[in-house]
Amino acid sequence: MGHGLLNGKNGIIFGALDNKSIAWKVAERCVEEGANIVLTNAPVAMRLGEINELAAKLKCDIIPADATSIEDLENLILGSMEKFGGKIDFILHSIGMSVNVRKKKDYTDLNYEWMKTTFDVSAISFHKVMQTAMKHDAMNEWGSILALTYIAAQRTFPDYSEMAESKALLESFARSFGYHWAKKSKVRVNTISQSPTVTTAGSGVKGFSDFFGYADKMSPLGNASADACADYCVTMFSDLTRMVTMQNLFHDGGFSSMGMAPEILEE
Amino acid sequence: MGHGLLNGKNGIIFGALDNKSIAWKVAERCVEEGANIVLTNAPVAMRLGEINELAAKLKCDIIPADATSIEDLENLILGSMEKFGGKIDFILHSIGMSVNVRKKKDYTDLNYEWMKTTFDVSAISFHKVMQTAMKHDAMNEWGSILALTYIAAQRTFPDYSEMAESKALLESFARSFGYHWAKKSKVRVNTISQSPTVTTAGSGVKGFSDFFGYADKMSPLGNASADACADYCVTMFSDLTRMVTMQNLFHDGGFSSMGMAPEILEE
Amino acid sequence: MGHGLLNGKNGIIFGALDNKSIAWKVAERCVEEGANIVLTNAPVAMRLGEINELAAKLKCDIIPADATSIEDLENLILGSMEKFGGKIDFILHSIGMSVNVRKKKDYTDLNYEWMKTTFDVSAISFHKVMQTAMKHDAMNEWGSILALTYIAAQRTFPDYSEMAESKALLESFARSFGYHWAKKSKVRVNTISQSPTVTTAGSGVKGFSDFFGYADKMSPLGNASADACADYCVTMFSDLTRMVTMQNLFHDGGFSSMGMAPEILEE
Amino acid sequence: MGHGLLNGKNGIIFGALDNKSIAWKVAERCVEEGANIVLTNAPVAMRLGEINELAAKLKCDIIPADATSIEDLENLILGSMEKFGGKIDFILHSIGMSVNVRKKKDYTDLNYEWMKTTFDVSAISFHKVMQTAMKHDAMNEWGSILALTYIAAQRTFPDYSEMAESKALLESFARSFGYHWAKKSKVRVNTISQSPTVTTAGSGVKGFSDFFGYADKMSPLGNASADACADYCVTMFSDLTRMVTMQNLFHDGGFSSMGMAPEILEE
Repeated sequence: MGHGLLNGKNGIIFGALDNKSIAWKVAERCVEEGANIVLTNAPVAMRLGEINELAAKLKCDIIPADATSIEDLENLILGSMEKFGGKIDFILHSIGMSVNVRKKKDYTDLNYEWMKTTFDVSAISFHKVMQTAMKHDAMNEWGSILALTYIAAQRTFPDYSEMAESKALLESFARSFGYHWAKKSKVRVNTISQSPTVTTAGSGVKGFSDFFGYADKMSPLGNASADACADYCVTMFSDLTRMVTMQNLFHDGGFSSMGMAPEILEE
Repeated sequence: MGHGLLNGKNGIIFGALDNKSIAWKVAERCVEEGANIVLTNAPVAMRLGEINELAAKLKCDIIPADATSIEDLENLILGSMEKFGGKIDFILHSIGMSVNVRKKKDYTDLNYEWMKTTFDVSAISFHKVMQTAMKHDAMNEWGSILALTYIAAQRTFPDYSEMAESKALLESFARSFGYHWAKKSKVRVNTISQSPTVTTAGSGVKGFSDFFGYADKMSPLGNASADACADYCVTMFSDLTRMVTMQNLFHDGGFSSMGMAPEILEE
Repeated sequence: MGHGLLNGKNGIIFGALDNKSIAWKVAERCVEEGANIVLTNAPVAMRLGEINELAAKLKCDIIPADATSIEDLENLILGSMEKFGGKIDFILHSIGMSVNVRKKKDYTDLNYEWMKTTFDVSAISFHKVMQTAMKHDAMNEWGSILALTYIAAQRTFPDYSEMAESKALLESFARSFGYHWAKKSKVRVNTISQSPTVTTAGSGVKGFSDFFGYADKMSPLGNASADACADYCVTMFSDLTRMVTMQNLFHDGGFSSMGMAPEILEE
Repeated sequence: MGHGLLNGKNGIIFGALDNKSIAWKVAERCVEEGANIVLTNAPVAMRLGEINELAAKLKCDIIPADATSIEDLENLILGSMEKFGGKIDFILHSIGMSVNVRKKKDYTDLNYEWMKTTFDVSAISFHKVMQTAMKHDAMNEWGSILALTYIAAQRTFPDYSEMAESKALLESFARSFGYHWAKKSKVRVNTISQSPTVTTAGSGVKGFSDFFGYADKMSPLGNASADACADYCVTMFSDLTRMVTMQNLFHDGGFSSMGMAPEILEE
């Protein structure tokens, strides 16, 4: 049951792989709140996932795009504007993948070519999306651009490996480009730093379930779910948060502000 | 034209002095979004201000309370629950006053008795409100407690004087008590760090208008208005932000993330 | 075997209670590095502690002072300058005490009169020391003022109770007064955020030893000792760190930058 | 006149281009404090600069290395150990260069191939140095690794362009690798965030001199000089700071803690 918070707004959502994806939940909630959306994902992810099912359910379009390809992104941005019959109001970037983690390379033995691919997919893609949208003047005034990130950008979680750097990069792009978007079109750019979430991507990290439990115990409200994250994204896309920009917003049940939880020691 | 975001919720709003107050705007927006509210302010502030006018307009009650008095706060909390016929869903703390600033004492020549009054009014009152509400088990599950703060808690603005310390204290109370509220009733506690705002209180600070202009230029989106702040408070009171807690949220048009704005140098 | 880093410098050291105190170690190291020092502590702490023994060993003077009393602080500052035959180059503030913690009051049931005493002793005393020294123009150019703090100022450690707020206040005073000291005499003001340390004061906190072990495991280099902290203080008093000011410096074996240590999960 | 702080220590210093370079000053100060050092720089930078002059003056060796080349780094690490007749105690990484800035590409029109080169030279090189040193177990216990960075990693300075991301990446590598170095050999890894400095590299940035003046005015102690930075690096390489790790340390005259300086408004 939506509140009409996104009535008449047009948005592009990256990264809905399957129904565990945060982006999937965001897509559902945005439509529920009245938005028109275009779903997008990399061709390879589309084959693995169930995005067609989501598009059918939400009666929205899919435009495949490899987020590292400027050509694909131009096609996505222009195609979306055509479908919307107007400019874009919001974008969700929910893309992350580490080649070195997948290949089980230790952080002290990284392959640098793989690292570059990791950064390109997980972070530089965000700059590419924004640069492409700006070149085509594709955003409406007071629009909102969001990317999902993780607290490893600020603190060390050794198993997270080079994704720490990817997220540091991603958050820096948000701040830097946020200045330019604000000046050009009063568009805001923020990142949401989400609790560890049981997604197909997230749960691939080594020792994920132990870590998930630790974070849950360390967070006074427990880990934030993908559903709760989707609600939070809706507020950030709505007109109620127009003056929040260049921020990294923790959506984590309080994890980031805890030094030590008695619940951990009680074990 | 609200979205029904606060339908059926009960809230207490501190600090609506006159129609320039952020709390005043928050009260209006909360009612517009469907909330039942109780307004409160110190007896002395009530005489100066126009809160009766606001209460009449919003058809809500006023319960006067000196926020430094536990007795008054008990009366407020219990009286509000009685009026609501139930527990409280949200609280806004928007109270700040520096005796040393009013009396034009330099930061290097502070009067320590006045400093204690400043801290009591501007920060300890927030702990007192939360402690009193907890003693009476006055908050509904998943409620939301907010206080308004300023970036002087993190960075030095010499003219802001001992209010810097008041805000550092206030934000620390939010984090610390946030843990206990989460554990007890899944209530979240946050602070919103707002742009300088032309209120009757804010504009009393020395050199306010020059400073307001500087901050406006330094912020890529410009200074956030009281109206925009009220919108943001609504999202924080709504069910869409349930997992955000113990955070200090900048609502400042990007000021906090700027190192240097070319607009300042161009002068 | 010092390096002569503080040759010819004059310093005042607060808070050397007994030979477990960080301040005790700092005093020893400063003398070893060539400084002339004056020790000071509250009259009551002096009776409990063994400061006379330290003064005898270091051949330095003691001037008792209740750090909450302006009169005592004036006596201390003026008396020290007289003994030194000149101005002061460095000051260490190492004072902290929570009445509510001592009296075992829960954080959700604090006594506010006790809280005020806690803040006065643990934080406002730092402002008083700086204000008194400034009134008497007591610091040499390029001097250095330090206070010891704890990461509870940034993150929640529930058992630390109102000391979190004391430390937030203390760090804010350092930033705020740091501006004024820089402008007046190029004096720098910083805080060192130290690992939990087995001192007579620190170990009084509830569950200290469990917590100490947790922090030790969470810190890649382990907890920093009082001896290591004394070394770090020496660098901050020396001429090698003249341009570091208004900073909170973590001396904690890496604790503050850890999100999760695998060593904790392995248990 | 040194204090013998680095007596018997062996260090590698990257990035001494000419006598305005911070690395140049660090090299001089390290030798003055008793260290044996090896200088290194990229072959191309060596031709442009005057590093041979420095090596002659300091009576130390040069081993050229392109810091993006693993082969060169292996040669450097192994060659240095051979020259030292032992392991390494400290490393300074002072390397940064943005292709897009040099080619005057706007931040909203970046060339992504150039961006990758920028990141490789300015940030990934730091990981490569550490990974190579670890593979060869080249660091002595309690060694110290430092990189120079800038506050653009935290806040937006639009003219700094993609160097903001480079520095965010660099600081993240310091935190992440700091964990592994601590566990392996008790080696610490930190970054020093330095004031804008009049170096041949720094002054190439657009509008540098206006910006330098702004930062100088905004910093209560003024901008920190390269000489002062060298002193600070010495403390970080000495045994007096062994427990400081995974930190970003501002050496900036207080700039990072200022919200607004009255001196700016007075203009």
